[in-house]
Amino acid sequence: MDRPILIGITGGTGSGKSTVSRQILCINGEENVVIIEQDSYYKDQSHLTFEERIKRNYDHPLAFDNELLIKHLKDLLNNKPIEKPIYDFEKHTRKEKTVTVLPKKIIILEGILILYDEEVRNLCDIKIFVDTDSDVRVIRRIKRDIKERGRSLDSVIEQYMNTVRPAHLQFVEPTKKYADIIIPEGGYNEVAIDIIATKIHSILDK
Amino acid sequence: MDRPILIGITGGTGSGKSTVSRQILCINGEENVVIIEQDSYYKDQSHLTFEERIKRNYDHPLAFDNELLIKHLKDLLNNKPIEKPIYDFEKHTRKEKTVTVLPKKIIILEGILILYDEEVRNLCDIKIFVDTDSDVRVIRRIKRDIKERGRSLDSVIEQYMNTVRPAHLQFVEPTKKYADIIIPEGGYNEVAIDIIATKIHSILDK
Repeated sequence: MDRPILIGITGGTGSGKSTVSRQILCINGEENVVIIEQDSYYKDQSHLTFEERIKRNYDHPLAFDNELLIKHLKDLLNNKPIEKPIYDFEKHTRKEKTVTVLPKKIIILEGILILYDEEVRNLCDIKIFVDTDSDVRVIRRIKRDIKERGRSLDSVIEQYMNTVRPAHLQFVEPTKKYADIIIPEGGYNEVAIDIIATKIHSILDK
Repeated sequence: MDRPILIGITGGTGSGKSTVSRQILCINGEENVVIIEQDSYYKDQSHLTFEERIKRNYDHPLAFDNELLIKHLKDLLNNKPIEKPIYDFEKHTRKEKTVTVLPKKIIILEGILILYDEEVRNLCDIKIFVDTDSDVRVIRRIKRDIKERGRSLDSVIEQYMNTVRPAHLQFVEPTKKYADIIIPEGGYNEVAIDIIATKIHSILDK
């Protein structure tokens, strides 16, 4: 069996990177594509109290367990299954349970900081940055956090201004220079999705 | 015969857009691809004196004969040959002679301002912006103008600061938002070239 292809898809909060990932999965089929969310690799914080956990900056590169992520990516690239961690966003730590992920021909790694770490970056065969204007991104985040997570407008804006925005400017935005291609406007950019899907099709056809 | 595909490739001076165009041509073959340079469509200035001609701003959208360009693009898209103008960069006007260009399956339109005009933009099936840092771009331009055009360093820098740079910021850079995909670092970005070439292959295979 050939080495799978690893596609890294990154971009700021609300950029549309998940939509791009899901569209690539839909077009190419679940039998060929698996999505690994960087969010699953938030560090285990079971040794901290809840109060300590909620004070952490979850937009900082140090919030992620890159060691485990790299091990799992290498396993998948060697066609070995992994036990992917499950993160509990309410308790702010890793669950005891894991989920078995089987290797597929196309592995999509999706998250805000996947081009930040050099080793993770170098594992990616295709590096995509989804680039959406910051006003559009913050509007999407506000709508999502209020609707799906029951948060208040004030708390969303406070978190955005205090941690999300500074971390985006400091850590996420500079990784754009490592991208092979930049896609403006995420999931609604049909031409870009089509170009990437065609490339993936040609890999699968081989 | 099917309607050809029009690919617009733009970016600032020195961005590497010509290299991208030529690589796509090399990979897919001259029998399938023709490159139309926007520079060929500088306005005819035979009614002006030489002194008047050299004072014009050649980085401004009004320097181009979009009417003729649009007519020619439509002809090529309807599989009709065109008589492409030849621009004389020493005399700063159009030559009397033209060159016959036969329609091909893939038409590449390449230039600094091809995404500026709405009608030209809407004719493009795939819109690519080649995005390279401005310091790298100016260094490439300086080297090219001194080496290939025998210009002095001072004159290249003066032209760059007085017309090229302001026109880039005012007219070229804002067209990035119309691109379907943005390619960082032009012709040396093999992954991006490969993705685009694969898309073109799939069009040609149909």
